Amino acid sequence: MADRLLCETDMAFQLFDWLGLEERLSDSEFDGDTARSYFDLSQKLAADQFLPHYKASDNQEPRLVDGQVHVLPEIGTALAEYRDLGLFGASFPEELGGMGMPYLLSSASYAWFAAANCSSIGYTMLTGANARLIAAFGNDAQIDTFARPQIEGRWFGTMCLSEPQAGSGLADVRTRAVLDGTDQFGDRYRLTGNKMWISGGDQDISENIVHLVLAKVPDAQGDLPEGTEGISLFIVPKVLPNGDRNDVAVAGLNHKMGNRGTSNCLLNFGERQGAIGWMVGEPGQGLRQMFMMMNEARIAVGFGAAALACRGYLLSVDYARDRLQGRAHGQRNGPPVAIIEHSDVRRMLLTMRSYAEGAMGLCLYSAALVDRPDDADDTALLELLTPVTKTFASEYGPKANDLAIQIHGGYGYTRDFDVEQLYRDNRLNPIHEGTTGIQALDLLGRKILRDGRGMEVLAQRIAQTSRNADALDELRDAADALRVALALVQSTIEAVRALPSSRQLDNAAQFQTAFGFVVVAWIWLDQAVTAQALPASSSTDSTLRAGKVATCRSFFASELPMAAPLLAQVASGCDITQTADPAQF
Amino acid sequence: MADRLLCETDMAFQLFDWLGLEERLSDSEFDGDTARSYFDLSQKLAADQFLPHYKASDNQEPRLVDGQVHVLPEIGTALAEYRDLGLFGASFPEELGGMGMPYLLSSASYAWFAAANCSSIGYTMLTGANARLIAAFGNDAQIDTFARPQIEGRWFGTMCLSEPQAGSGLADVRTRAVLDGTDQFGDRYRLTGNKMWISGGDQDISENIVHLVLAKVPDAQGDLPEGTEGISLFIVPKVLPNGDRNDVAVAGLNHKMGNRGTSNCLLNFGERQGAIGWMVGEPGQGLRQMFMMMNEARIAVGFGAAALACRGYLLSVDYARDRLQGRAHGQRNGPPVAIIEHSDVRRMLLTMRSYAEGAMGLCLYSAALVDRPDDADDTALLELLTPVTKTFASEYGPKANDLAIQIHGGYGYTRDFDVEQLYRDNRLNPIHEGTTGIQALDLLGRKILRDGRGMEVLAQRIAQTSRNADALDELRDAADALRVALALVQSTIEAVRALPSSRQLDNAAQFQTAFGFVVVAWIWLDQAVTAQALPASSSTDSTLRAGKVATCRSFFASELPMAAPLLAQVASGCDITQTADPAQF
Repeated sequence: MADRLLCETDMAFQLFDWLGLEERLSDSEFDGDTARSYFDLSQKLAADQFLPHYKASDNQEPRLVDGQVHVLPEIGTALAEYRDLGLFGASFPEELGGMGMPYLLSSASYAWFAAANCSSIGYTMLTGANARLIAAFGNDAQIDTFARPQIEGRWFGTMCLSEPQAGSGLADVRTRAVLDGTDQFGDRYRLTGNKMWISGGDQDISENIVHLVLAKVPDAQGDLPEGTEGISLFIVPKVLPNGDRNDVAVAGLNHKMGNRGTSNCLLNFGERQGAIGWMVGEPGQGLRQMFMMMNEARIAVGFGAAALACRGYLLSVDYARDRLQGRAHGQRNGPPVAIIEHSDVRRMLLTMRSYAEGAMGLCLYSAALVDRPDDADDTALLELLTPVTKTFASEYGPKANDLAIQIHGGYGYTRDFDVEQLYRDNRLNPIHEGTTGIQALDLLGRKILRDGRGMEVLAQRIAQTSRNADALDELRDAADALRVALALVQSTIEAVRALPSSRQLDNAAQFQTAFGFVVVAWIWLDQAVTAQALPASSSTDSTLRAGKVATCRSFFASELPMAAPLLAQVASGCDITQTADPAQF
Repeated sequence: MADRLLCETDMAFQLFDWLGLEERLSDSEFDGDTARSYFDLSQKLAADQFLPHYKASDNQEPRLVDGQVHVLPEIGTALAEYRDLGLFGASFPEELGGMGMPYLLSSASYAWFAAANCSSIGYTMLTGANARLIAAFGNDAQIDTFARPQIEGRWFGTMCLSEPQAGSGLADVRTRAVLDGTDQFGDRYRLTGNKMWISGGDQDISENIVHLVLAKVPDAQGDLPEGTEGISLFIVPKVLPNGDRNDVAVAGLNHKMGNRGTSNCLLNFGERQGAIGWMVGEPGQGLRQMFMMMNEARIAVGFGAAALACRGYLLSVDYARDRLQGRAHGQRNGPPVAIIEHSDVRRMLLTMRSYAEGAMGLCLYSAALVDRPDDADDTALLELLTPVTKTFASEYGPKANDLAIQIHGGYGYTRDFDVEQLYRDNRLNPIHEGTTGIQALDLLGRKILRDGRGMEVLAQRIAQTSRNADALDELRDAADALRVALALVQSTIEAVRALPSSRQLDNAAQFQTAFGFVVVAWIWLDQAVTAQALPASSSTDSTLRAGKVATCRSFFASELPMAAPLLAQVASGCDITQTADPAQF
């Protein structure tokens, strides 16, 4: 089973039994059968076309030759197949040439591909996010010319936010856009500046590349406005609609620890006469528009991180069943046993599963919320859960991959086993689309202290899950523990509110970690409740039920109790980081 | 300061102020001035000869050409310099051609080199351990012929324990040794078998290689004895004393995630007529002899892990001081500030420092215990602390390196910055010389439940440190917290004793994690007490004092409180891992 990507049983359970995907499809053009076919197709295509070049895309990094980036040809072949099946447009509405698939389903599909080859499928994620932004804010000509070819998968897209001096701090963007006229795509500008960390910034596997670029329009004196308010968004294609090459040059490639199949470029805009670009929407709205995309991107990062963790877990289960080492518990002699018999190996497997499937569950839950934009409760909850979804998956997914190496022992430390690469690939996720520290400020500052609505909805849902669990002998204790933990979160929030406002976010990171434990404990308990209701007749179901309940118990025994000391530190207004003099480090 | 390896101020503080190295030297041929010269020399040689090829030894892995492994030539050049200064023999007694240096001092020296280039200095660690084993258990002819050239640094050594089917479970070693006669080196055998994961198993930078090989002598029927009791230890040189090549072949190289400068080989012994080897000491004592070496190796692994963590910390401090991003706390405008001004960056720096310097402190404390073999208390404490020293450094060192990447953001994820390599290099440490899970069994099973002496000594020393801290306003709360934590450890041990013996080690891993927090909290408090006594007149000292106290407070606020929920899980006899059916994963 070396090609197991995600656990099919678990993914089907989460989508269909737990989140009730089929019932959700009642008001879409998709029915349950179509959803299941798509689910099967994703698995098969991921295994057949994306997994086989996983190692090769790591060994053979993108190369820059005469200003053109070349990537491993197998990446292009796999993405061409993906394109020919219409999958680039899966979640776009039919009027834009898409399939109108719910986000939940297209995300689950994305997870299969990310498990198989996160850097190859990365191109589709960027392309979809780019097209969605143009579709949301662009004019008709922009949509027809720049979004549709991406929805068809012929052109790929990028997001050009960071600059060498502006990463987490986008207020310092210095790329400038000077008005150059007006044409059928709207106001046309000339852009000059350097953009850093551009994933898919150049490659040789799509007909064209659409860059979405954050830049500032200088005032009459030629000065750039301060802060983020002056940032606008521009469409800057690699090849212009008239077929000319735009003034966009690849200044260099970044050589990454992992995720190497996705080229990552330093791009120079306007080395010569200025790169031609068209403003998307209103001036000064660039960051706001980009954040819409980034909400979705954060959940997508979560899915990627969870998928790598799930694959590492499955590889570890298989290895632990095959690898003979040591003797049975309490025995000194006899034949060696599979290492899955050892208590510590099972501890690691349970921990990995609790992180990996817990993260996947949280991502799927959030994706389901995306599909209900008209439900105020769901929307408020989504706002709250987005930073946690991104952070829990990207912080604990790599921890699961770390344990996968540990289970494999020395073998896991070699590049012959995929767990080594999964570990390196997943290390990107706590960094991009907002670091863990940035997410913590968003969670505690914006999503909790500024607007408490999401927290109210979460409390209601946790209460509902706990009531459901009260009825089940095996889960009653967990329900009590979850209620206690929620109350602790709530009292901690009140304690933070009572602090001077300049001090409220000092321990946002610790709060986020604790909050993640509570949220994922809730996800686990809710899944365990659903699993308990599965029919006892099927052996697949009874194995799943036992596994879900045991892993839920493991998370409640080993992870949830860590929330209390973290929250105590937050509630106490611990001032160590604020008072530490930078000179003393 | 890109070449800062370890913090010189901190290392001098730990060695001289905290551990009183000069007073310890009173009964050795070394005096304080010599120790300080050696300390300086190590720094300089590490920076000048070992650091410059750190990246190159990662990029240009060892190659196997026609049966011979070739490593980066700069590794050989650096080690030749190390040899010419007599450093291979630093900690060996003068009568064996060494310098008679205390282990504490030679370990501190090793830490500088490990910080500069862990894979290059790895050859000296293996060679020293090999020579020490032969010196302890070999006959005079073996010592003269095989140990002395290693103490001189002309020959290098290896440890051949693992086989493809026998890693953590050495009872399953299948390499066979058949008696072939007797000569001036004692009983001569012919060995056949395959040894896996042999660090330095072949290279082209020493005149010869001495393999120390675990093998079993078959009985009259040709069967190998079961279990570990039949394992003996053999000297098997690559080149025989008569100049002939021995029957040892390199079957392959392992391609590792990191630590790539140290070649890692699959060796075939006896592909032709059988490799010639001489038994060291008595038959059946192989594992016991090897464990003597492994005690020292575990501390050395700890030093390596701590050194990589310390270097990552220093690189992060420098980066955080230089990198401008975001605005000052509470400001929306104005110039960008260095990221060390941000609360979350300082949190990460404090956490890293608490892991890195805490691990280094624990390693140095253990090394100081090694130097007092005649003190029964110190010896008992060393036994107890050895698995914790190895585990805390190798589990939390990589976590510090993980945070170093996070502080560097996208840059940290590229191979242009050393923090990326430090992270990969350090990931080896929880695996070799006994995995974290194996250490946990040793700690709780052997070192605590079977013999409580070490725990008594630890309790006395913690009590002493706490009393010293009681007198200091800034540390009194920490003293109380440490006493509470120690009492919790003690009551947990009693709770574990009350469990059925077959269940006592079920949660050994969680116990070890909690125990590590308590031990390192004690190390931090003890250092903070010492730092408080430094003269207030020097600015270096007052910066150090402030940093030590703040980092101690950080560890007590963020890490020590995690011990309680972990110990609660252990004390409850949590049976989740035991009852989890392997089929349900």
